[in-house]
Order: sequence, then structure tokens, then C-alpha cells
Amino acid sequence: MKNVVLASTSTLYGEKYLQYLLPVMQELFAGIEEIVFIPYARPGGISHDEYTARAAAGLAGTGITVKGLHTFADPVQAIREAKGFFTGGGNTFVLVKQLHELKLMDLLSEVVSKGTPYIGASAGSNIGGVNMQTTNDMPIVYPPSFQTMGLMPYNLNPHYQEPIPGVPHMGETRETRILEFHTQQSIPVIGLREGSWIRIKGNEIRLEGSMPAKIFEQGKTPYELAAGSDIKI
Amino acid sequence: MKNVVLASTSTLYGEKYLQYLLPVMQELFAGIEEIVFIPYARPGGISHDEYTARAAAGLAGTGITVKGLHTFADPVQAIREAKGFFTGGGNTFVLVKQLHELKLMDLLSEVVSKGTPYIGASAGSNIGGVNMQTTNDMPIVYPPSFQTMGLMPYNLNPHYQEPIPGVPHMGETRETRILEFHTQQSIPVIGLREGSWIRIKGNEIRLEGSMPAKIFEQGKTPYELAAGSDIKI
Repeated sequence: MKNVVLASTSTLYGEKYLQYLLPVMQELFAGIEEIVFIPYARPGGISHDEYTARAAAGLAGTGITVKGLHTFADPVQAIREAKGFFTGGGNTFVLVKQLHELKLMDLLSEVVSKGTPYIGASAGSNIGGVNMQTTNDMPIVYPPSFQTMGLMPYNLNPHYQEPIPGVPHMGETRETRILEFHTQQSIPVIGLREGSWIRIKGNEIRLEGSMPAKIFEQGKTPYELAAGSDIKI
Repeated sequence: MKNVVLASTSTLYGEKYLQYLLPVMQELFAGIEEIVFIPYARPGGISHDEYTARAAAGLAGTGITVKGLHTFADPVQAIREAKGFFTGGGNTFVLVKQLHELKLMDLLSEVVSKGTPYIGASAGSNIGGVNMQTTNDMPIVYPPSFQTMGLMPYNLNPHYQEPIPGVPHMGETRETRILEFHTQQSIPVIGLREGSWIRIKGNEIRLEGSMPAKIFEQGKTPYELAAGSDIKI
């Protein structure tokens, strides 16, 4: 049974790294002592070691330890044997390129679909969707494919926000970009605000956390979905 | 001799489409009656015909008429014979995919480098850089390559802006994204604010318009460059 959390962000404004997600992770990883951390998104270009240490520090006190996927001689075996996964945020292009080049994307999807608990934040949540084509990130590397795990039949837009009133800027809004996505593809998109996460348990997909999400379906006016609602698009 | 304008945006807040650029275009295209409009970036997914009509309307009264590149039976010949080019903004991924699939990217670069006047706005300016990997756009399609025209040895970030003070949002700032780009590539990046454009005449590259630009060089603290300055990085 799928057991997945896809969070908009790792960190809420004014809070410590992972602070608001710790209860969610303790429930997700109940009874599990060690999980595999996937550090490939490298926020700000930090090393895999540094990023894994940051994740370990964020989880200090929970009884959950982390081991970086990059430290295993055989990452395929590591994914097959992992008790749980946490994929940190950063650059989605960098993350997806690495997972495809190491032939780990489909394997991770398979293992998580069979029930190994998974939590992603930001870029780590983007890869839970059908493809990474609604990311906000800059294309700083060229991945061999934009396809991701497809743990749900939707795409995500993490850190979703509305335009800020009164700011005289002519760059596209987030909504404009997602509507442009729908000129090319029909996958529904969940605009996931900071403070929200998607909880997948088996066939149930629910919006959790403190904020409504904005739902984009091709050809429909975007609409709000209240926190706590089932997502059935 | 190269004769190029790369503008941050087509439209300033509160102004009509192309309004502030009309004097720039009249100087760039002095003595030219008809230019080729490249509509491939399709902002909001509008059709090539609609976008070309919008460009024609924006240029009404200047004596410059436009013909959409999509209307030529042989776009290679159209590019070779054009008297001038205007590439409109929209989605850079869509624009770059189309130019590569039609084998027009290198040809356009060659023709513009030999002196056919060129103006781009936003996505149309991104393709003046070495590659499109500092675009702000969403990767709604998968181009066969991220390489662009390389009319200057820099990349652009159009619609550049600083974080807005007091907005409690944890998504990356524009500066953070560009610094991440420099963890992967060494090409200098010009953060081009709305109201600014880059003017290339032969070997001279100058920042024009009303705003300073923010210059990002790998390994250096980003710095401001005043409007009117030569760009020599």
C-alpha cells in the first residue's frame, strides 16, 4: 500500500528546517529507525554529504537516522532494501538528471508504489507527480527525460503562490505558467501552498496541512480545494 | 556587423505592448519596411497567427510591417532573406524546441551574426545568450537541446527582480537560482530588469534603458551595472 507524503516546502517562514513536518515524518516512519536520504537536488549546490548532514540534524531527537543514498556502493540495492525515503528539495532538474542517469527513477517508483514510506519536500515532491514539467526551478542542467515517479495521476507545483497585489512586474504569474502547461499537456496540476502536503495512503489522496490548494484542470477555471479534502480530480 | 537588441520585456507596467520599445525598433530597423516575426514562444498558448497579428498591431504606425515565420513554405530561405527579425516573448522551452526541431537555431545565429538586425523580448532575448538555462519559464515541453544563439558570451535572466521585502515565502529567490546555475556552469549572467535592454553593435555590448542590471559572475559577489555602461565581463 502506497504510503507517501509530498510537501510543498521543507521549511516554513520563521521556523527551523523540517520543524512543521516532524510529526508527519514520525507518523509516516513509525517503527522505522533508519531511512535513506536522497540528496541529489543539492540546494545552493551543497555537497551530498553536507545535505545529508543537514537532514540528519533536522531529524535529531525523533529517533530516525538517515543514510545518504550517495554513500551506498550499490544504490539499486540500497533502494530495494530501504525502510523509508526522504528526498530533500533543491533543483528539480539536478535531481531528475541524477535519478535518470543512475537508472533509479523507475526503481524508486516501483518500490514506493509497493509500500516503502516516502516523503518529499519541494523538488522531492515534484518527482512524485507524472513529470517535472510544472517545477518552478531553473533548468541549470539538461536531464535525459522530464518523466518522474507518477505516484499519483497529477503534477505538483510546490511553493504555489498568487501574484502579490500592487507589485508592478510583467513576468508571468504562477497561474499563467500552469495555464500555459495546459496548452501542451492535460495532466491536472495541484498548486500546493507552503504549509500544505499531499498524503497518499493506498488509493486515497488527501490534502493535509494548513492551507487550501489551487487545482488546475485543463480547460476549467482553476479552483480552491480546502485542507483536509480528498483529491479526486 | 551585429545589430541586436535583447529586451527584458515587451511591455512595461501600465503601458501598451511594445510602447517603450518603439523608438528602439525604429532605430534598429531604420530603412527596413518588412521584418520577420518569430511567434514560436506562444505566450499563453496563443496561435502563431494571433501572435503575429499582435506584433503587427504593436508596430502599427511605425511603417514596419511583420510577416510570421510560420507563414513561409521554406523557413530556412525566409531566415536567409529576412531584412530583420523580432522574436516575441512567451515560453522559452516552446520557442527553443521549435527552433531546434526546424533546424533554425544555428542558421538564425549565423544570419544575425552577419548583420541582419534582430530584436528579442523576454524569451526572444533569452535565445540571444549562450544557452536558455537561466530562463524563468516552466519546462512545459522538452527541447532537444538547451543551446541558443550565443550572440554574446553571456546568458540573460529577463524580468530580473530582487525579493520583495516582507513577503514570507520560502521558494528560492531569482538570485539564489542564478547562483545555483553557477554551481553547474561558468557563463556570466545578466539579470536584466524590466525597462532595460542589451544593445549589441559589432563588438560593443551596452546596457541601455532605465534600470541598472545585476551581473552574476561565477565565484564573485553579484554587483550592479549602471544603465548606459558597456558590458565587459
